[in-house]
Amino acid sequence: MRTNPERRQALLDGAIEVLAAEGARGLTFRAVDKQAGVPAGTASNYFANRDELLTQAGIRFYEVIAPSAEAMAQVSNGPRTKEHIAVLMREVVSRLESHRTAYLALLELRLEATRRPELRAVLTERVRADVEFNIRNHLASGLPGDADSVLLLYLALNWLIVEHLTLPGIFTEEQSLALIETAVERAIPG
Amino acid sequence: MRTNPERRQALLDGAIEVLAAEGARGLTFRAVDKQAGVPAGTASNYFANRDELLTQAGIRFYEVIAPSAEAMAQVSNGPRTKEHIAVLMREVVSRLESHRTAYLALLELRLEATRRPELRAVLTERVRADVEFNIRNHLASGLPGDADSVLLLYLALNWLIVEHLTLPGIFTEEQSLALIETAVERAIPG
Repeated sequence: MRTNPERRQALLDGAIEVLAAEGARGLTFRAVDKQAGVPAGTASNYFANRDELLTQAGIRFYEVIAPSAEAMAQVSNGPRTKEHIAVLMREVVSRLESHRTAYLALLELRLEATRRPELRAVLTERVRADVEFNIRNHLASGLPGDADSVLLLYLALNWLIVEHLTLPGIFTEEQSLALIETAVERAIPG
Repeated sequence: MRTNPERRQALLDGAIEVLAAEGARGLTFRAVDKQAGVPAGTASNYFANRDELLTQAGIRFYEVIAPSAEAMAQVSNGPRTKEHIAVLMREVVSRLESHRTAYLALLELRLEATRRPELRAVLTERVRADVEFNIRNHLASGLPGDADSVLLLYLALNWLIVEHLTLPGIFTEEQSLALIETAVERAIPG
């Protein structure tokens, strides 16, 4: 297997583009080579098989959407208020929506995971780590709200993003912002 | 176009099975004929083209998952309490999850809608009607909670179902039931 890190990353970013545009069924080594603009046969030198490519694309998603150091600092440095949590949640939704292709690719991977136990195991581990990190991070931050607040916001905001990305006509921008605010207001008791 | 209603419905149910099993890319007239166990060429006598088949499968989803008269009576006849709303929400989640194939097919259709404006328009209209019906129905029921309560539960429970159906290892059955109860408790003020 080849290991040039930039090349590998470009191939995974190509895989994410193909997944979002063509669905999991359209994800072939040939399509990834073409999308990444590399010679035919390159992807097959980096990934043992399609399962490996799907799994690594799922892991790459979390690198792509990772918050910047600046966004993380906002969590630690802002006031310990509900209003500030609403600001943070707006930032999360807007960041994930700005990675539209990657988010749609992850939804394709979740659906493909219903058919592939290996992919399901890797995504389960990755999502669980993400949820647990968010809970720990929130509880350590001194912001109001408990573990259930984090879980309820995780659930509601993920579907809000699905709605925006797949059926953007359901909620206007204004309704969405109001919904995020209400979600924070109610998810956090007291 | 042929119009035998039972045959048409069997074809759409076949389309839903194919969507869930193979993804939107796998949805061909031939695959639908085969899944529905009808002679090759039947589906193409009922649907003008693939867009029409996708669109009608989306509409069929809402027939498949419609609550029974008994479930609707539960809304009107139960006590006007948060506890009763939690019972109703558990029923909704469990009903949607019992239609696993149809729900996964609708997610495939949502992703396909990012590529097909006609499908997107039909799904947008159908989802909007569903959300508005739920709000009207809730407000008319005399149950506690406002329009935002309905919207927040709609968002949180849809993603909970996505989580269960695609990565069932994230939340245990017990955690899910507790999350539904907390979602109701907090989505409804007072």
